[in-house]
Amino acid sequence: MTRPIFFLTDFGLADTYVGVVKAVMLSIAPEARIVDLTHDVPPQDVRAGAFALLTAAPYVPEDAVVLAVVDPGVGTCRRPIAAQVDGRTYVGPDNGLLSWAVRGDVPAVILDRPRFWRPTVSATFHGRDLFGPVAAHLARSVPLAEVGSPCADIQTLPFPAVRRTIGHDGRVVMAQGEIVHVDRFGNLIANLTAADLPDEPTIGVAGRTISGLAPHFQATGDATEGERLIALIGSAGLLEIAVPNSSSAAALGSGVGATVTVTGAVRSSPPRPP
Amino acid sequence: MTRPIFFLTDFGLADTYVGVVKAVMLSIAPEARIVDLTHDVPPQDVRAGAFALLTAAPYVPEDAVVLAVVDPGVGTCRRPIAAQVDGRTYVGPDNGLLSWAVRGDVPAVILDRPRFWRPTVSATFHGRDLFGPVAAHLARSVPLAEVGSPCADIQTLPFPAVRRTIGHDGRVVMAQGEIVHVDRFGNLIANLTAADLPDEPTIGVAGRTISGLAPHFQATGDATEGERLIALIGSAGLLEIAVPNSSSAAALGSGVGATVTVTGAVRSSPPRPP
Amino acid sequence: MTRPIFFLTDFGLADTYVGVVKAVMLSIAPEARIVDLTHDVPPQDVRAGAFALLTAAPYVPEDAVVLAVVDPGVGTCRRPIAAQVDGRTYVGPDNGLLSWAVRGDVPAVILDRPRFWRPTVSATFHGRDLFGPVAAHLARSVPLAEVGSPCADIQTLPFPAVRRTIGHDGRVVMAQGEIVHVDRFGNLIANLTAADLPDEPTIGVAGRTISGLAPHFQATGDATEGERLIALIGSAGLLEIAVPNSSSAAALGSGVGATVTVTGAVRSSPPRPP
Repeated sequence: MTRPIFFLTDFGLADTYVGVVKAVMLSIAPEARIVDLTHDVPPQDVRAGAFALLTAAPYVPEDAVVLAVVDPGVGTCRRPIAAQVDGRTYVGPDNGLLSWAVRGDVPAVILDRPRFWRPTVSATFHGRDLFGPVAAHLARSVPLAEVGSPCADIQTLPFPAVRRTIGHDGRVVMAQGEIVHVDRFGNLIANLTAADLPDEPTIGVAGRTISGLAPHFQATGDATEGERLIALIGSAGLLEIAVPNSSSAAALGSGVGATVTVTGAVRSSPPRPP
Repeated sequence: MTRPIFFLTDFGLADTYVGVVKAVMLSIAPEARIVDLTHDVPPQDVRAGAFALLTAAPYVPEDAVVLAVVDPGVGTCRRPIAAQVDGRTYVGPDNGLLSWAVRGDVPAVILDRPRFWRPTVSATFHGRDLFGPVAAHLARSVPLAEVGSPCADIQTLPFPAVRRTIGHDGRVVMAQGEIVHVDRFGNLIANLTAADLPDEPTIGVAGRTISGLAPHFQATGDATEGERLIALIGSAGLLEIAVPNSSSAAALGSGVGATVTVTGAVRSSPPRPP
Repeated sequence: MTRPIFFLTDFGLADTYVGVVKAVMLSIAPEARIVDLTHDVPPQDVRAGAFALLTAAPYVPEDAVVLAVVDPGVGTCRRPIAAQVDGRTYVGPDNGLLSWAVRGDVPAVILDRPRFWRPTVSATFHGRDLFGPVAAHLARSVPLAEVGSPCADIQTLPFPAVRRTIGHDGRVVMAQGEIVHVDRFGNLIANLTAADLPDEPTIGVAGRTISGLAPHFQATGDATEGERLIALIGSAGLLEIAVPNSSSAAALGSGVGATVTVTGAVRSSPPRPP
């Protein structure tokens, strides 16, 4: 049984880079199913790639090989690695790209065994010459421990911090995060989960405020200038700002990095003892 | 034998939405071949999605599952459905998206059986949590009648009307339709078939007129301002306006919704009885 | 065993053209693996398609069928062909598209056997009606000689010329070529191989000069205005001009067709005999 390969890069689809890596992988593992996660990570944007992997990883089959290449440091001394999380094996450069999907103390290796590479490795295309071939060998069920030497210290990328203020009663009063992704529909996605939010939240972003969470994209939201701006917990489990049937990114002129502040209901102070 | 799945959405390829739905489907049906029809339907444009399905449907294998998701109403009370046309099974939201490819009195069901869904269904991503899983189960040859309850009234989207004027002799004198699609090459595609057109047609669009139909894209056409503007019956069996090796959409500054008027040759009146 | 099909066009992914050709091929060869090389060749740009094929071809599996369609002459008398290079079979229009990947005296046929086509062939979509079906039959191991009649004279496209000046000692003193491709990262790729270049090269492009070749994209290069402009031999074995983590095409305002001049070190004349 050949394992499926899920493939994510910043290569785009206008060149043949993606097709060539697939060609190389199918030369090694002709029966492999190769599925694109996306190849439109912004060029050399390791954080955007890490976010895409983080949100997609829970859904790939439990025996999948996940090949991820966003690699501005290709050809330098950054290491090529692979790591195992349950049944899934992640392959890519050790520049933090894998570090949001691969967390904790998991088996990992440095890919230092040229017999699993193409005979000649170019300085600029390790996807074709090193990562792709290793992924294909893993898909053919070569064990992780064979493709490289043990590696104890994968480089991690700090996840954008969430600041939370806790009130008298131990509940969240205020949470502050940021927009980490804008999707194809113009939805602004923040680094805030439902658990991060105060009760009866009021969401502030780009100078606008939104009262409460909507159940879905068609809900009527608060709007001060005509668009129906809404906030909801989206399909990745994260807070999203949306305009039904339109783009909130365009409506707000906002994007990745924008601050999102969520405040809870103002409550009267608890009675003081006399 | 696993049935192939043909997949059409407005999700785009920049996010991992398409890849995640495929990941979910392959977790259920690891042997399925999944083929993209397109994922670049304009966001939330149900009509454009319906047109893409209409023109692609005749070519998919006769045992295919066709998964289509353009779903601005996700999370509201619009129903998820599946319908069978000959050997093919269509899966998608009941918002008219399927209604140009699925016509007449065909077996259909409302997808109301949660055992064929993901355990948790988000309010905003039924492609991943409901439609994709059902399509994968159908690909594994679960019968239509098992995945939902009978449904008698699929919602239909009116196809853009063609107005035709019939002459004394019962033949078409004039036909009026509209541009329903602009393709990658800038070809303007109208909702008019060869059967809709008068003999010796003169085509009027965007203030320009074209005499007769060309046999292919390289034919020399009529041009009043330099471009060689031509009309022909294109590969979908529909009237197309083209500029050889260039874009007629750009040349005419025209697009979806533009009126197309086709008139026949002016003939002398038949002799009147005295 | 079904052969894999590698697929390259200028169809784009916004329409269903690519999906429909795949649908037709899978109807004939349901077990075929179909892999996209790219579908974003600029519309009707046969040279760009030929370059993409040239650089991708060495990597496809040795038994692959390569289907390439960039076909502005569809419907005219240009011939459909297939050619065999070692174990690989190329299928496409005889307009030069295949001629950089398929060189020399190889077995080739004109595709003149309608039993391998769709029953009806439109004048504007031979990808769907002729090339795709033939590729699928080849994938099912129909021999080349069966799908057409022998063809001795494939049309070739001239490869952009490299001008080289050779010095006293027989070594390259100066080489002049041109940019033949700009990739997704904005790297400018020239038609010059390492063998074309003089020793200690100085590269001139778009009014800028670069001293020497960098080993990879992160090397510090020469810069006169702030960007770190570098030259290197890229993954296709061709000279590339790059700006680390950015776009050299944007930095230089340059693109396909721009002249690239490479000069060697100035050496003192050899001592003359008295």
